[in-house]
Amino acid sequence: MFKAKVLIKRRPSILDPQGKAVEKGALHLGLNNIKDTRIGKYIEFTVDTDDKKSAEKEVNEYCGKLLANPIMEDYEFTLEKVA
Amino acid sequence: MFKAKVLIKRRPSILDPQGKAVEKGALHLGLNNIKDTRIGKYIEFTVDTDDKKSAEKEVNEYCGKLLANPIMEDYEFTLEKVA
Repeated sequence: MFKAKVLIKRRPSILDPQGKAVEKGALHLGLNNIKDTRIGKYIEFTVDTDDKKSAEKEVNEYCGKLLANPIMEDYEFTLEKVA
Repeated sequence: MFKAKVLIKRRPSILDPQGKAVEKGALHLGLNNIKDTRIGKYIEFTVDTDDKKSAEKEVNEYCGKLLANPIMEDYEFTLEKVA
């Protein structure tokens, strides 16, 4: 079994209005040094197989078809063997 | 200046209905080995100060008051010095 940890980020060229909005909130709290906030996703799950190649294949399919938006987002992941 | 990278996760005791829903989608794609999907946030921003202590203080305030929900979520972050 593998534990997968996935990071999904908007491509650098794509604006992040949610990040901009939260950052305005930071200014209201007096946090003046926070800049360029970008909000992505962090997803954890397990892959119930002992073959790393097939685990990678499932993770790529899961990310590419469901978790990430291939038009706007990039993803990266790590797989770690667990008992 | 520091680059901050924040991971926000639901506490393990808190259910994640969004993760459950996406996982049902995985089954429909034929990905039968994906289990225990939990969806959190990944947030990047810069902190425009050269003092690490005060950068950490701002990040903790930003996370604790705006980015994470302290009732349901935990956060962790790294700070990396950039030019």
